[in-house]
Amino acid sequence: MNRILRGAVVALTALLAPVAALAEPAVTEFELDNGMKVVVIEDHRAPVVTHMVWYRFGSADEPPGKSGIAHFFEHLMFKGTDEIPEGAFSKIVAENGGSDNAFTSYDYTAYFQRIAADRLEIVMKMEADRMVDLVLTPEIVATERDVIIEERNQRTDNSPQARFQEQFDAALYMNHPYGIGVIGWRHEIEALNIDDALAFYKAYYSPDNAILVVAGDVTPEEVKSLAEIHYGPVPPSGVHPAPRPKEPPHLAARRLEMADPRVGQPYVMRSYLVPTLKSGEDPREAAALAVLSRILGNGISSRFAAALEREQKVAIDTGSWYYATARDENEFGIYAVPAPGHSLDEAEAALDAVLAEVIASGVTEEELARVKWLIRSAEVYEADDQSQLARKYGRALAVGLTVADVQGWVDLVDSVTAEEVRAAAEKYLVLERSVTGHLLTAEAQ
Amino acid sequence: MNRILRGAVVALTALLAPVAALAEPAVTEFELDNGMKVVVIEDHRAPVVTHMVWYRFGSADEPPGKSGIAHFFEHLMFKGTDEIPEGAFSKIVAENGGSDNAFTSYDYTAYFQRIAADRLEIVMKMEADRMVDLVLTPEIVATERDVIIEERNQRTDNSPQARFQEQFDAALYMNHPYGIGVIGWRHEIEALNIDDALAFYKAYYSPDNAILVVAGDVTPEEVKSLAEIHYGPVPPSGVHPAPRPKEPPHLAARRLEMADPRVGQPYVMRSYLVPTLKSGEDPREAAALAVLSRILGNGISSRFAAALEREQKVAIDTGSWYYATARDENEFGIYAVPAPGHSLDEAEAALDAVLAEVIASGVTEEELARVKWLIRSAEVYEADDQSQLARKYGRALAVGLTVADVQGWVDLVDSVTAEEVRAAAEKYLVLERSVTGHLLTAEAQ
Repeated sequence: MNRILRGAVVALTALLAPVAALAEPAVTEFELDNGMKVVVIEDHRAPVVTHMVWYRFGSADEPPGKSGIAHFFEHLMFKGTDEIPEGAFSKIVAENGGSDNAFTSYDYTAYFQRIAADRLEIVMKMEADRMVDLVLTPEIVATERDVIIEERNQRTDNSPQARFQEQFDAALYMNHPYGIGVIGWRHEIEALNIDDALAFYKAYYSPDNAILVVAGDVTPEEVKSLAEIHYGPVPPSGVHPAPRPKEPPHLAARRLEMADPRVGQPYVMRSYLVPTLKSGEDPREAAALAVLSRILGNGISSRFAAALEREQKVAIDTGSWYYATARDENEFGIYAVPAPGHSLDEAEAALDAVLAEVIASGVTEEELARVKWLIRSAEVYEADDQSQLARKYGRALAVGLTVADVQGWVDLVDSVTAEEVRAAAEKYLVLERSVTGHLLTAEAQ
Repeated sequence: MNRILRGAVVALTALLAPVAALAEPAVTEFELDNGMKVVVIEDHRAPVVTHMVWYRFGSADEPPGKSGIAHFFEHLMFKGTDEIPEGAFSKIVAENGGSDNAFTSYDYTAYFQRIAADRLEIVMKMEADRMVDLVLTPEIVATERDVIIEERNQRTDNSPQARFQEQFDAALYMNHPYGIGVIGWRHEIEALNIDDALAFYKAYYSPDNAILVVAGDVTPEEVKSLAEIHYGPVPPSGVHPAPRPKEPPHLAARRLEMADPRVGQPYVMRSYLVPTLKSGEDPREAAALAVLSRILGNGISSRFAAALEREQKVAIDTGSWYYATARDENEFGIYAVPAPGHSLDEAEAALDAVLAEVIASGVTEEELARVKWLIRSAEVYEADDQSQLARKYGRALAVGLTVADVQGWVDLVDSVTAEEVRAAAEKYLVLERSVTGHLLTAEAQ
């Protein structure tokens, strides 16, 4: 996961967003007797559906010493049941003209298929089947563990940026499991076995830990009827992931320096521990932070780009990120890639000067209006894509937010004032809450 | 726990150590049928005994989110049983001319009494009773929680040094629970309740998680007979603390800065993650690190004192620490308190110059001989004090070391070569393994 690249992509997309009005889709919620929550998002523009099952646990819910098991288990869910042998799941979906995949994050694990609306039952039946009837053997687990280790080799161990991110996150979080990456520590992945896998499966893979999201050309009645047939008989486990440890007060500014000969382009990044929509006491703060993040680092009109890239020319790339929908206190990140001839310290000082200016003098009404428009436009884009729409609701509900939270987000953002943005910067962008990292080429040391 | 002060005390004691020969006491080991290990250390110089029960778990074995429960439970163990009401335990010991106390560390929790040898049975009976028969109510737990919070207020929250240490340790350990202090995070202590206490008690307080150490004017036969009567009937729990998460590779040097107006004397400290006798692959490395630590920072003849305090006069105090008997990878620490007019950066640079010199040119035979003598003398002192002797064996056995490890330690240290000390410094005192902390007065920022 390269957050810096991702930041750049988001910036570009947002700037191309057209003027558009936002129409909320019809969203219906209900719950099965076994505790499985169901959300139906009607979208009748084309005869297709997106069928997703979101489990309300992710890597941040792993037992101590078992990092990687949530993502590992996502792979194992494709290994087959008595009725659907290994490899058959995706093959059946494809033969019916659909596609499927899955993903694991800190807060959730999700499985989804996109298929013709009249074939919804096919995928629902198979998804319910593997929730309860997965067949695992020590050989299957050992073989897939090798696949995961190779995935870690490729994405993490061969990437100085990814390894730096791991060390950085471990320094940011003092107590909360967000300090450990989704992929997991290598030495812990290597030790995962079938007992770990079965314990995780039996405890957590159950309807009372799951949310079914169906978006598309269906009615709530159709979904309810099918869900009662296929998910209804699956017994609840009654076991839920334990409450996660919370962060203690952060009192000391931390710094991190790593050098690697494979680093072609050094950069400086900093993350501050900040509240999110779910974890914070005041949802307005999350909205203010979302606005602040975009004003600082989103696109060519942002403060960082204007000051560091165009005016001072000390950086060739800058950016920011903030995950408003993380379940627990999370990071507010900024970065700069120095221009040739300029140091990481110079770039960092320039970032700090921009922050000091925002804290001292606030943001302008023009910036506020531009960024609110960006956020609204992004929502419109999302609403226009059925899969993204399903993901938006699934992600929010999986972390404990509500349909009302999702539908109220853009209006909440719209109501944020310039002073609230400034105040959020002053309150949260303090060094005691932060880790600052320098990734260097080995020669630079 | 003020490690810096403790370092200074150790240095002083060691320098006063006389020339003395080391005579190992007679140590007998056996095990009860319920899995309780027993160690008897004969010491017939006076008609007294030290009776200790060591539980093989400490704060590093606490469930996630329940930090502080191990220490909290140490307090609760004095709350009374059906037979021994609250407050009676210590009163009975005192009425019989004895004294008692308890302590909790990362790796163990221990309870001890010192009493006339003919009254051993009195304390053994009571200690066995509270292992299985403790009476807890929500009120008792809530009242004692307030006591613990007040203890935390006094020792930690009112001490910038202690708070700095908490932040520092959290930055040093990326995965292992040594990153959380024994006292526990305040917000987690505040949430501890009777369910947490009972779960901890029922799972872990059992003879198969305990080691009985009796030192003094007794025979192994007497101890065995009494232990079978009093501890023998206590059923084993069959539950042991889960394996602890281990550290991933440390790839990035970390720095930490904290400022507080109450800090009268700023200092710089650094800890490196290093192996211990139990956790390392080669016990000779632990011995080399123990020698290295004393050569660098123990007493007025140490490298740091000579260079920083006497020659350069940049520091008014320096020191080092290393816990060879910690169960898992632990810290090798160094510190310096700058002299008036000198900065933390100057002091840190001077520490680094000493380390570079040791790594480049090694240590002298004179230094080696002096430090080996210090270590041997400290052992003699320890052997001369019955309580310390009992503690030495209990501590070692509680982390999984053996009687042979304890008795072989001084000879192992004696066999360490100057090159092994230099090599240990080169291998482990690298910045990637370290956190460097600056504690400042608030004005200095």
